Amino acid sequence: MNAAVDFLRQNRAKHLQWSVDLCRIPSISTKPEHKDDVRKAVEWTRQRCEEAGLKARVMDTGGHPAVYAEWLGAPGKPTLLVYGHVDVQPTGDLKLWDAPPFDPQVKGDWLIARGSADDKGQVLIHVRAAAAWLATEKKLPVNLKFLLEGEEEIGSPNLAPFVHQHRDLLKCDQIVISDTGMPDDGYPAVTIGTRGLAFRELRLTGPKQDLHSGSHGGIVANPVVVLAKLIATLHDDKGRITVPGFYDDVREFSAADRKEINALLPDEKKYLGELGSPAFVGEEGYTVAERRSIRPTLEVNGMYGGYIGDGSSTIVPSKAVAKVTMRLVPNQSAVKIGAAFEKTVRERCPKTVSLEIPHVEHACDPYVSDRGAPIMKAAAKALKESFDREPAYLYEGGSLPILPMFKKELGADSLMLGFASPRCNAHGPNECANIRDLDRGAEAVARFLAYAGG
Amino acid sequence: MNAAVDFLRQNRAKHLQWSVDLCRIPSISTKPEHKDDVRKAVEWTRQRCEEAGLKARVMDTGGHPAVYAEWLGAPGKPTLLVYGHVDVQPTGDLKLWDAPPFDPQVKGDWLIARGSADDKGQVLIHVRAAAAWLATEKKLPVNLKFLLEGEEEIGSPNLAPFVHQHRDLLKCDQIVISDTGMPDDGYPAVTIGTRGLAFRELRLTGPKQDLHSGSHGGIVANPVVVLAKLIATLHDDKGRITVPGFYDDVREFSAADRKEINALLPDEKKYLGELGSPAFVGEEGYTVAERRSIRPTLEVNGMYGGYIGDGSSTIVPSKAVAKVTMRLVPNQSAVKIGAAFEKTVRERCPKTVSLEIPHVEHACDPYVSDRGAPIMKAAAKALKESFDREPAYLYEGGSLPILPMFKKELGADSLMLGFASPRCNAHGPNECANIRDLDRGAEAVARFLAYAGG
Repeated sequence: MNAAVDFLRQNRAKHLQWSVDLCRIPSISTKPEHKDDVRKAVEWTRQRCEEAGLKARVMDTGGHPAVYAEWLGAPGKPTLLVYGHVDVQPTGDLKLWDAPPFDPQVKGDWLIARGSADDKGQVLIHVRAAAAWLATEKKLPVNLKFLLEGEEEIGSPNLAPFVHQHRDLLKCDQIVISDTGMPDDGYPAVTIGTRGLAFRELRLTGPKQDLHSGSHGGIVANPVVVLAKLIATLHDDKGRITVPGFYDDVREFSAADRKEINALLPDEKKYLGELGSPAFVGEEGYTVAERRSIRPTLEVNGMYGGYIGDGSSTIVPSKAVAKVTMRLVPNQSAVKIGAAFEKTVRERCPKTVSLEIPHVEHACDPYVSDRGAPIMKAAAKALKESFDREPAYLYEGGSLPILPMFKKELGADSLMLGFASPRCNAHGPNECANIRDLDRGAEAVARFLAYAGG
Repeated sequence: MNAAVDFLRQNRAKHLQWSVDLCRIPSISTKPEHKDDVRKAVEWTRQRCEEAGLKARVMDTGGHPAVYAEWLGAPGKPTLLVYGHVDVQPTGDLKLWDAPPFDPQVKGDWLIARGSADDKGQVLIHVRAAAAWLATEKKLPVNLKFLLEGEEEIGSPNLAPFVHQHRDLLKCDQIVISDTGMPDDGYPAVTIGTRGLAFRELRLTGPKQDLHSGSHGGIVANPVVVLAKLIATLHDDKGRITVPGFYDDVREFSAADRKEINALLPDEKKYLGELGSPAFVGEEGYTVAERRSIRPTLEVNGMYGGYIGDGSSTIVPSKAVAKVTMRLVPNQSAVKIGAAFEKTVRERCPKTVSLEIPHVEHACDPYVSDRGAPIMKAAAKALKESFDREPAYLYEGGSLPILPMFKKELGADSLMLGFASPRCNAHGPNECANIRDLDRGAEAVARFLAYAGG
């Protein structure tokens, strides 16, 4: 084990270059024009798995392809399946980036690029750890499989059928995922809960085409205004979501749980400064730490309608669109909440416009890990030794749609070892990864493999 | 006069080609990348004025240039100033056009192109009439000036200083404008009132950048949601605008006026079908015809914020923008209403976001013509003879910001002879002009010049 850790320390520059090279590929899975880039990222990752000493291949999923890799030379030892993804979110407004999102920049301890934290850098932590063991000991302390996909950021639409189809190939005792966060740089963590997600797009049509607002303004419903009024009804003045039944299944956490969660929030003033918002808001009766982890939310992720260019255009718009996601907590059901939301919006939408809600599969249930499992103890020991600090146990605000699916298809629980701090700004502009945390993360995983092997 | 009318009838094909050629120039004044096209449209129009026998030149305005043309060979006769514009609205969504907006199509009686009705086709009616007189009689029955500008669709920001600077050159007894509508194809009209306009753009910023909606959703204000809530407050459930003082100066029209206005609305069911809306809406207590002409409105012309591409992106947006215009009626003041709106929005906007309202000059007061003036009788006679039908007298829902300005700078009233029917769909996709109405319009103007000359 010490040899593997030494190997990782000696190869930090080379492994940083791996992150740089992978982040250079603009593998935005939601954009059809980047389809070839997703495949390129997958193929590049397959090559690194081979370079590490694993047997690796690219597999078709029906959508974007995935890498499967394995080393199965430890009979009698447990089999771990590492899951990750090499696709990324869209860039958003390019003007908000200090450098092009796919031209990775190294500045001090930080690697800045779309995907550097979510999830390319974290995927490579596991490839690095396997490479270290196989280079120094010619073996691993456990049997190891990798499944690294290319469409997590669009909700992994083909993963469930793929895993179902290949459930013998992917058979394992435990899944390990590094796609979650740490409370701060250098502060390791195991995530023990993730929020679920339900997504709906609302498409309103008023007049069949944009109209002159002088000739026809004031006599037909303006779909932008109607949509604004619909959105305005979704929260009450206490910050609670007004969809009937929305809170019916929400688990109320114990005072002890809430105390632990609240202890983890960074300095509120500093945190607010990082977000750049004028003030915190949210559901009455809960703290900032609780609102972002164990309470459900409803956000409009985007909205548009009418003329959105420079200057003015005096029209009554024909169409307005809003993209809405809800983050769900134990024990809400994504399907149930998605349907309740859709029903509510259809009921509240006036007949003066037409409303279309396309059918989507972008949904997942919340997930909670067993905190007392042996694998959790192996992870805690490895993290403590590598970061010189006891790990935190986190309820993550984000969603990992694959957790309940893996449990169902493979019967295996997931361990979430995350290495992205809040400063990484995943999904936002200037996404970045702390290079020292990536290095310590690789060492932690190398140690974890030993402890997991018993 | 009959010779001039005959000339127009013999030259219809040539004059239609003028419209086609001018509409081929994409002179979108609000788009900086079309700056040269606006100049090209102005220069092309100057050449046609020369071809008609006028003395014409292109003049600088500080923004997009304008054409000035004149024929002053009728001493003792009144001087008319024809005002029009050769810039156009943006195209909007190109997918809604059956053919490219700047590739004019002739289909039956219709010329389809951006600008065909608003206002290139109508500008050329006057050039055609002047050409007919000068080709056949070698003179005009009145002194005639033309001022054809290139930035009406962005609110004529340089016209007032230009007219002020050149008030001696532009001195006239009467202004004539063809940039208004007819109740139907073949149904001539004089517009006797136009609505005013006040424009404001609302720019909200929440977090300083887009945030991951899992990590940070539910704890900071979402500017799209805040903007939606703001917009939702702007109308009450009776369709009335809730800005305090908004209706203080609104003129209530007499029962006789309202009867005349209501008689002009086309078949409501057919009209609704043309608009393509599921239903009429609007201010309680007023008819459809009244709501679109003599009642003020507030419309959101466009709104955007967050992720507006395909699929989903799970962010809390940093910014949201709405473009709002209000149509004003006698005796509202655009400056006063614009300020009242801005004050109201600032008061209602919570401190959880920051609000920016850029300073804009896009505003104009409503206008009413003197229905008993001799020039009105000359117009009515010419229209009746050319269209074989008594003209209608219209209150137009649109705005002509230059009317109150001309009155102030030149002391002259404006006569509004419009030739665009509701089917022309000005500002929308597949904008078109009825070729027969353009032809009859040119004849009407040729006759009107004779009657105006006394």
